[in-house]
Amino acid sequence: MKILAVDASTIVATCAILDEDKILSEHILNYKLTHSEKIMPMIKEVLNSCGLKPKDIDVYAASKGPGSFTGLRIGIATIKGLAHVADKPVVGVSTLEALAYNMPLADGIVVPIMDARRNRVYTGMYKWVDGRFETVNEEMAIEVTELIDMLKDVEEKIIFNGNGTLVYKDQLKEALGGKAVFAPASVNMARASSVAQIAMMKAKEGKVESYYSLVPNYLRKSQAERQYEERKRKDGEK
Amino acid sequence: MKILAVDASTIVATCAILDEDKILSEHILNYKLTHSEKIMPMIKEVLNSCGLKPKDIDVYAASKGPGSFTGLRIGIATIKGLAHVADKPVVGVSTLEALAYNMPLADGIVVPIMDARRNRVYTGMYKWVDGRFETVNEEMAIEVTELIDMLKDVEEKIIFNGNGTLVYKDQLKEALGGKAVFAPASVNMARASSVAQIAMMKAKEGKVESYYSLVPNYLRKSQAERQYEERKRKDGEK
Repeated sequence: MKILAVDASTIVATCAILDEDKILSEHILNYKLTHSEKIMPMIKEVLNSCGLKPKDIDVYAASKGPGSFTGLRIGIATIKGLAHVADKPVVGVSTLEALAYNMPLADGIVVPIMDARRNRVYTGMYKWVDGRFETVNEEMAIEVTELIDMLKDVEEKIIFNGNGTLVYKDQLKEALGGKAVFAPASVNMARASSVAQIAMMKAKEGKVESYYSLVPNYLRKSQAERQYEERKRKDGEK
Repeated sequence: MKILAVDASTIVATCAILDEDKILSEHILNYKLTHSEKIMPMIKEVLNSCGLKPKDIDVYAASKGPGSFTGLRIGIATIKGLAHVADKPVVGVSTLEALAYNMPLADGIVVPIMDARRNRVYTGMYKWVDGRFETVNEEMAIEVTELIDMLKDVEEKIIFNGNGTLVYKDQLKEALGGKAVFAPASVNMARASSVAQIAMMKAKEGKVESYYSLVPNYLRKSQAERQYEERKRKDGEK
């Protein structure tokens, strides 16, 4: 089974092809936010480099969020378009789960954090138990201080990765002390190979869906929605 | 500091640029052995995608072995050529160390194994101690049965990765039982980002060298050398 996966949920654009237990190709670009220009040429390049055409891919996968609203829409729309044309099923993968999967067999609890602005993060908690990847806490959008409260009593190592570490490293270190460990650069950003790997497990369990039904999981409302609701609320008060 | 790293020590061709604590770009191609055709265009693409020219790179890095003799020569010659033209220092990184570095903060002893043919493997032993990456056993070329003997009494988890796992997984599993754990596909092959990360640590410690002095570390003699010595030995016996 061949899976093509993309992740465009952050500034990073990445695409990979996984063939059963072998990554055939992976590209990662962590430079300037121009996903709409770069993601399709990147997919084409990755396919070409492996001598494959869109119809040779069995399952298309995208990280479905949380993340940048525009980035997620570009990544998911691209994957849905390709899957539609090639008439193949799709799999959506949690951006946070994929980030955690960058750290296979890590010693401790893996806590990916993505900066959600205004002192909030998208996060989740994952763990490798006897070589299996398990979810300890589902993804959530919370304040950094709430996350710290949740982690204060954890007794094992807490391994952080994701772009949130660039913003909140000092705060987390100060609050959690020596049990807070930070991942090196090579696993600190989205990797389509991790998305592909989780998608492969899901696909093998039959957890695929139609390109019609896949939607982003924003985990919070857009600024426009929040402002609209705020305005409605205020209008109601008048 | 910007580091450009390549790894061509196995069938995988990979190139990455690391800028301090940020991977700017990484390409991995694990499809057909045509390094001599693909490595230079890949480097050009990776540089272009980040808007960089060879002179913008501060340190050039290559995995220096062990691995395919021809692959190592191509990777190292390419890096030496670029460093020479741009007049920059180079860093050589152990292929095995870089493989182990694919598994940051892993729980147990990390044992990368590369198939060296005829029941032999290139291997080493590495460990994450308090977030630091340490070498437990320097790289070596040994028989799989010797490796199993060395690992029999290890009480922690033994995490294998590298292309040797594709050949010796069953044998290792049978001999070592439940403590043998195998890395998922996404971290099972060479990643130039891991090479770059180790090169960054070395460069920060001043451990760079001239493009004149960098040489591959084959860990064993070439077939031609072995046959020559065998013939000389036999001639001596006559």
